[in-house]
Amino acid sequence: MLYLIGLGLGDEKDVTLKGLEVIRSCARVYLEAYTSILTVRKETLEEFYGRELILADRETVEQEADEILRDAAVSDVALLVVGDPFGATTHSDLVLRAAKAGIQHHVIHNASIMTAVGCCGLQLYNFGETVSIVFWTDMWKPESFYDKIRRNRLSGMHTLCLLDIKVKEQSIENLMKGKKVFEPPRYMTVNQAVDQLLEIVQNRRELGEELALTENTICVGLARVGASDQKISAGTLQQLSSVDFGGPLHSLAISGCMHPLELDMLKLFAVEPSTFEQINIEDSSTYLS
Amino acid sequence: MLYLIGLGLGDEKDVTLKGLEVIRSCARVYLEAYTSILTVRKETLEEFYGRELILADRETVEQEADEILRDAAVSDVALLVVGDPFGATTHSDLVLRAAKAGIQHHVIHNASIMTAVGCCGLQLYNFGETVSIVFWTDMWKPESFYDKIRRNRLSGMHTLCLLDIKVKEQSIENLMKGKKVFEPPRYMTVNQAVDQLLEIVQNRRELGEELALTENTICVGLARVGASDQKISAGTLQQLSSVDFGGPLHSLAISGCMHPLELDMLKLFAVEPSTFEQINIEDSSTYLS
Repeated sequence: MLYLIGLGLGDEKDVTLKGLEVIRSCARVYLEAYTSILTVRKETLEEFYGRELILADRETVEQEADEILRDAAVSDVALLVVGDPFGATTHSDLVLRAAKAGIQHHVIHNASIMTAVGCCGLQLYNFGETVSIVFWTDMWKPESFYDKIRRNRLSGMHTLCLLDIKVKEQSIENLMKGKKVFEPPRYMTVNQAVDQLLEIVQNRRELGEELALTENTICVGLARVGASDQKISAGTLQQLSSVDFGGPLHSLAISGCMHPLELDMLKLFAVEPSTFEQINIEDSSTYLS
Repeated sequence: MLYLIGLGLGDEKDVTLKGLEVIRSCARVYLEAYTSILTVRKETLEEFYGRELILADRETVEQEADEILRDAAVSDVALLVVGDPFGATTHSDLVLRAAKAGIQHHVIHNASIMTAVGCCGLQLYNFGETVSIVFWTDMWKPESFYDKIRRNRLSGMHTLCLLDIKVKEQSIENLMKGKKVFEPPRYMTVNQAVDQLLEIVQNRRELGEELALTENTICVGLARVGASDQKISAGTLQQLSSVDFGGPLHSLAISGCMHPLELDMLKLFAVEPSTFEQINIEDSSTYLS
C-alpha cells in the first residue's frame, strides 16, 4: 500500500493519530520537502515519530518514483506531505504510477492552507480561483497572477495567493558549469509578494487600465498558520508592505466583496484599526455586503 | 482561552495530536453537531478522548454563546468542529463574541472537504466558487446553485457542491402547534443532488437555454472521505444518479476543463471506464487541456 499522509501546517504535533499510527508501521517513510515546510526540522519529526524519514526532493518524487514504490505491493510505504496531500500541490503522478503497478493507495488527510486561510475571517465560500505568486527575476516579471486576482475581484470573490518557494535551485552560473551546487532555499515573504503587486498596480495605472486592485485594497498576510507563533495581519496592500511577518511560510489573501461579519473578523487582526473605519470612503469596491 | 478544534473528516482517529492534548486539558468541551458529521457517534469520541463532550446544536452555538464562553477568560473551553473550524462553515460569530468579552481564541486546524476533495484527482487550483445544494420541497425548488455551477463551468473551473444537512428540523405541523418534536436528521445523498440537477438541466433545455451542464458532464461523487469505507465514483451526471454511495456525508464535484492528468486520475474511480474513452465525442465542453 502507498500511503499519502498529510502533516498539517504547524509542527510535529499537527499529524493526526491515524497518520501517526501508519507512519510508525510502514516499511519506509519519505518526507516530501519541496512544496511546503513545517516550522520544525526533519530531525524533530523523526524524534517525535520515533523513526527515520527519507528526505524526498522534487527529483526523487518525479524521477525516482520506482524507488519510492519499490515493494509497495507487498509492504507499506508512506509519503509525508506538509498540509494535505492533495492541497496546494498534487501527487497525482505518483498515484497513477502506483495504480499502473497494481499498488493500492490510501490518503490520510490533514489541514491545508487552502482551507485554513478561513481563520482570518474571510469566508471560504467567497474565494475564487487560487493563484500562485512567483519570484520575479531581472529578466522575467510575469503579471498573469494579477489578472486572475482581477477576475476574482470583478466577481466579488476573495483570492488566496500561495507564495513561491525555491528549494535546491542552481544559479545560472553553476547550471552552465554543470555543478550540482545549490542555492539556499528561498521562501517568498508577504512583503515581497505585496511589492510585486504594487509594481503591477503602478504599471497598469500608467497604461490607463481600470484598476481591480489598488494600494488601498484590504488584504491579509498570514504566516506560519497553525504554529504557536502564527501571525495574521489585515490592512491595505500598502500597509502590508512593511509588516514584519517573521519566518516562512507566508500566504496572502486579497479581499473581494465583504460581508460585515467578515469585516468584523478582519478588524481583530488589523494593522491599524482606523483603516477599517474609513473603508467605504477609501476603497468602495472592497466593501459591499 | 476559546479553542476551536477541527476533528477532520473520518472517525475518532482523525483528530491531531495537538487537538487531542487540548481536548483532554479543557474545562469544558462542546461538540458542534449541526454542520457536518463523522462516521462515528459522540460516545465513540468520548471513549477515545477519555472525557465527556457536551453536544452543541445550532441553537446552543447561536443563542447560548454566553454559556459556551462562560469562564473562558480564566479557563479553557473548546468547541469541536467536524472538518476544519473555518471550513465548510464558519464560527465567526462565536469568535467575535469571545473577542468582545476579552477572551482569546486559538484554532487547531484539520482536514476539510474543501481541500480533501482533491483526492479524486481534480486539482484544487482549478476549482471555482463552492456551492451548496439544498433539499427541494414541494413548494420551494431554488435553482441558484445551478447558476453558480454554470458560471464556474463557463470559466473552465470545477465546482465542489456541499450537500444539504437537516438536523433538528420540525415539521410544519409541529412548528404550528409549537411542539418541540424533531424529525430524524436528513443528509442529502449524491443521488438526490444529481436528480435535482438533472431536473434543472431539463427545465433549462425546455427554456431553450444554452446548457453549461448536461446529463453527460463528468462528475465525481464522494462519500465518507477519510473514513476506511470512503467511496469515490466518477462518471457522467446521469451515471451517478444510480450509484449507491452508502451512508453520509456525501459531496459532489462537477468537472470544468480537465488536464489529461486529472482525467487519468478520475479513471481510477470510473463507474464505467468506457465512458472516459468517449469523452471527446460525448461532451467536448468537458475535456479541454
